Amino acid sequence: MTEKTLHMTIVDQILKGNVRTTARVLRDIDDQIPSARSILKELYPHTGRAHIIGLTGSPGVGKSSLVDQLTLRIRKEGLTVGILAVDPTSPFSGGAILGDRIRMQRHFLDPGVFIRSLATRGHFGGLTRSTNDMITVLDAMGKDIILVETVGVGQDEVEIAQSAHTTLLVTIPGMGDEIQAIKAGIMEIGNIFVVNKADREGGRKTLQELRNLIELGMRRREETGWEPLILETEAVKGRGIEELYQGIRRHREYLMTNDHGQWDSALAKRARTHFIEVLKDELLETILHRMASRGHSLETQIEKVKNKEADPYSLVQEILARELR
Amino acid sequence: MTEKTLHMTIVDQILKGNVRTTARVLRDIDDQIPSARSILKELYPHTGRAHIIGLTGSPGVGKSSLVDQLTLRIRKEGLTVGILAVDPTSPFSGGAILGDRIRMQRHFLDPGVFIRSLATRGHFGGLTRSTNDMITVLDAMGKDIILVETVGVGQDEVEIAQSAHTTLLVTIPGMGDEIQAIKAGIMEIGNIFVVNKADREGGRKTLQELRNLIELGMRRREETGWEPLILETEAVKGRGIEELYQGIRRHREYLMTNDHGQWDSALAKRARTHFIEVLKDELLETILHRMASRGHSLETQIEKVKNKEADPYSLVQEILARELR
Repeated sequence: MTEKTLHMTIVDQILKGNVRTTARVLRDIDDQIPSARSILKELYPHTGRAHIIGLTGSPGVGKSSLVDQLTLRIRKEGLTVGILAVDPTSPFSGGAILGDRIRMQRHFLDPGVFIRSLATRGHFGGLTRSTNDMITVLDAMGKDIILVETVGVGQDEVEIAQSAHTTLLVTIPGMGDEIQAIKAGIMEIGNIFVVNKADREGGRKTLQELRNLIELGMRRREETGWEPLILETEAVKGRGIEELYQGIRRHREYLMTNDHGQWDSALAKRARTHFIEVLKDELLETILHRMASRGHSLETQIEKVKNKEADPYSLVQEILARELR
Repeated sequence: MTEKTLHMTIVDQILKGNVRTTARVLRDIDDQIPSARSILKELYPHTGRAHIIGLTGSPGVGKSSLVDQLTLRIRKEGLTVGILAVDPTSPFSGGAILGDRIRMQRHFLDPGVFIRSLATRGHFGGLTRSTNDMITVLDAMGKDIILVETVGVGQDEVEIAQSAHTTLLVTIPGMGDEIQAIKAGIMEIGNIFVVNKADREGGRKTLQELRNLIELGMRRREETGWEPLILETEAVKGRGIEELYQGIRRHREYLMTNDHGQWDSALAKRARTHFIEVLKDELLETILHRMASRGHSLETQIEKVKNKEADPYSLVQEILARELR
């Protein structure tokens, strides 16, 4: 089989939803194997159909229990689910306690659910690109809904959450400082606020604080016409999941209404992030390759900076002048 | 005054520790004003003396109270302090409640302390580069100790913490899930673990969990010869601060011991991150500029990706083939 034919077979298998082939390609993406790029190219035209939902919040707020319960609910509807866990504390990525893991196993046996976790460190390319590449694959694979779980308030994590169609900000009662963080800028990206473990002490107060903040924040939101929902859940007991699912559906309907053009704008945001990340990544790779082929290894450059034979600013300018002529 | 002379005057003022000039240059860096680059170049040879200390942990663990108390303690020694707050919940960056802010004001009046906060989003260049640029300035300015406060477990934040000489991981009792996160990979970067608000319920248990994890993790640590310290503090009451300060000094002495070459390896890590970030950033800027001058604006490319006239992977390859000939 020629390489081209092999690629087409792989692409075909993914489009048909073949789990084993998909898993292999995702691993290749993670390992940055060049052939994965050609597969991604072929898959891209088949994307754009999935509803991408980002869930973000600190460790311990119960994001994965929510993902677990939402997945059950979505499956009842007959829709298929892709799950990307970009969270070292998630049972999906293997960081959680035994009980959580056992709970998750039911989904591993369901052919309508595809689960994948991402390493949160490593490559130059970074998290945002890998996540977007993997969303491309799951979308092309035909998953109706893609749940992307990210942890915390890091810059990349916010970027990822931002490129979802619907963003859920998850918190729990009594995390006053977290509400401060939300206040400081993250609030604008939330479409639905979830107060999980809502039966805990301080639940009422947290709800009220969120309401006040949202009222305050409405003025500076880009989005018009959508007032963020605030919902209470107790994910481990399944409480509030139906309301959350209906909330997500309402947001989807809102996005799809042509008047607002919001589905489109979520698409544009992701296109932007994805394009810039791929560009950055490939630029760096190309230049490092060129440098190496002329005997200027990355390590030599770093050594120069470390020994203060050169400052990083001048050194980079020199490299650009030489390599980008 | 020629531009060159003006630059030298600015550089001179920063090296003398002039607060107003320094603040202006930091603002220029934040705004990505090109002249800031020439200043950074001139400052770079004057760096490498400061002890860079990273503090990282979730919102609400009391990082800024620790920074506050540590600053007081360091100032007693007659040493100067630079503070970079990369944390939307920090009172230094303006995200905190009134009481915290009032507490901080004492440092604003102390000429031996320079405080600066960083926006956590915005540019292509990203957080890691801005932070490293600002560390360059504060180091050149002559600050003996630079405290860098970052929030959470995001990828960028971990990278920043990693490029410090000494990294403090801050947690509080009862954040079991956070310990899971530490377990999942962040642990390797901690030199000193701080259990703040140690008087709270669950303090003993948290300490024990950390001890077990560290014992487990010692095997896979790069660093040899340094067993991570676990310290208890109650920052708002000033309890445990002396021990923390002595712990930091011990780690510095350990780093400075030539046998280990660890001070050097921290330097190499930062040189690496800084060089790659500047390279990525300048590459992207150069290419976008070239593209624009040929009538290929960034927005047009994004539009193509969005409308699926092109996939980001092929489009980037096309651009590289054209612009990097």
